[in-house]
Amino acid sequence: MLDNIIAFMAAEFPQSTVKIMTVGDQGSTVKQEIGVDQLRPGGTVSGPVLMAVADVALYVAIIGEIGLVPLAVTTSLNINFLRKPSSERDIIGVCKLLKLGKVLAVGEVSLYSEGQEEPVAHVVGTYSIPPK
Amino acid sequence: MLDNIIAFMAAEFPQSTVKIMTVGDQGSTVKQEIGVDQLRPGGTVSGPVLMAVADVALYVAIIGEIGLVPLAVTTSLNINFLRKPSSERDIIGVCKLLKLGKVLAVGEVSLYSEGQEEPVAHVVGTYSIPPK
Amino acid sequence: MLDNIIAFMAAEFPQSTVKIMTVGDQGSTVKQEIGVDQLRPGGTVSGPVLMAVADVALYVAIIGEIGLVPLAVTTSLNINFLRKPSSERDIIGVCKLLKLGKVLAVGEVSLYSEGQEEPVAHVVGTYSIPPK
Amino acid sequence: MLDNIIAFMAAEFPQSTVKIMTVGDQGSTVKQEIGVDQLRPGGTVSGPVLMAVADVALYVAIIGEIGLVPLAVTTSLNINFLRKPSSERDIIGVCKLLKLGKVLAVGEVSLYSEGQEEPVAHVVGTYSIPPK
Repeated sequence: MLDNIIAFMAAEFPQSTVKIMTVGDQGSTVKQEIGVDQLRPGGTVSGPVLMAVADVALYVAIIGEIGLVPLAVTTSLNINFLRKPSSERDIIGVCKLLKLGKVLAVGEVSLYSEGQEEPVAHVVGTYSIPPK
Repeated sequence: MLDNIIAFMAAEFPQSTVKIMTVGDQGSTVKQEIGVDQLRPGGTVSGPVLMAVADVALYVAIIGEIGLVPLAVTTSLNINFLRKPSSERDIIGVCKLLKLGKVLAVGEVSLYSEGQEEPVAHVVGTYSIPPK
Repeated sequence: MLDNIIAFMAAEFPQSTVKIMTVGDQGSTVKQEIGVDQLRPGGTVSGPVLMAVADVALYVAIIGEIGLVPLAVTTSLNINFLRKPSSERDIIGVCKLLKLGKVLAVGEVSLYSEGQEEPVAHVVGTYSIPPK
Repeated sequence: MLDNIIAFMAAEFPQSTVKIMTVGDQGSTVKQEIGVDQLRPGGTVSGPVLMAVADVALYVAIIGEIGLVPLAVTTSLNINFLRKPSSERDIIGVCKLLKLGKVLAVGEVSLYSEGQEEPVAHVVGTYSIPPK
């Protein structure tokens, strides 16, 4: 299934640079390599990059459960920035779905600088699922 | 420490009906008995009751770490309602702090109808901590 | 229409003490009288009371547009506490809908201590609208 | 003042492509030109682009009030996606501060496809202000 999801995401979101590591069990793990393009002055990862990672983690966790649905869209995203991310470590996103309903899915994502124990940000997001 | 926190909360918030079960390790567990006063028509627990439970869980998790600070105040609270709570089960709130900074603390609370596995709501809240 | 909505709310939510002042134009104004029951120690209005006022304001703004739908439910609510509410002034909630879709409605509510210019809290909430 | 803020932002955030139109009166207006880099498949503006626009709008509204403070950081951001943005129109962000405290500032931003009346997204964000 993981290969199918990776191929689907590559076709649907060719410009995304987020790598999908694991999908399943109502969750996912993703990774964003951090380079100059992802940093902002002060040597930290920019907020929009963190949000993009969380958004992908949520999306793949959902399609890991309901199948390859191209029309699911984010309806809300709430992010708390907790600690300054390292500029020298990749960002890991760990998603856990909280609800998978017929019209709405809700999940949380903890974002980490790779190898560190405490999250740099925490996201709760909601997706709208199109009717079949 | 638990006894001190329970006594502190009873003195500071005499009208609260939330019971404090455990505090420590950057978290807490609390319980709200559900009776007629906590229900709304349709036989479910009202949203403001759920929010009040989460607010207490966050507060006691914070004072479990930083001591009995009466002036910490909630600055934001984001709640997602996930499933209809049972009208016949108490509400359990399980809090885990995500960050405990000098001026802000952030935590998440999962709310359950007692004995059920899937949460009825999920809260992320922020407290402002007064300077010493 | 206002009378119909007031009668509907009184029947559906008999325990609510929020008064509906105006409904229409994708918005509403509501009022909560503040007495001992709405206060918490320190002489301020409790957070759950503010959230309940916002929830009613959103709900009546929605049914002012789509008709008397008893099954619409709150799916998320995000509140920022901005200033300490006065213990001696009623709370006014002013709601403006941001989106009224087929399955989701989103609105914001500014909450005021009556007669004061700056809001005490700001809420963004989402309702799920049942299929017809 | 506008020129100073534009120069400050260009120096501090050289990679930002958001243009600052107006600042003052506890608010701001900003604009993001939309081209291929800002779109995602399906012909719409990507979520992280909208969040980045809102973040800049909040930041410049704050420094328009408190002066050129480089160390203010976003602590939370809550976005609701309301309508599909046009791929052929620039994005306009209109920010209004809700609170400007000593340690926290809170503001809301409505995001529009230029020339359209209804917002495509709505953001509430919080900034932490460093002690002087």
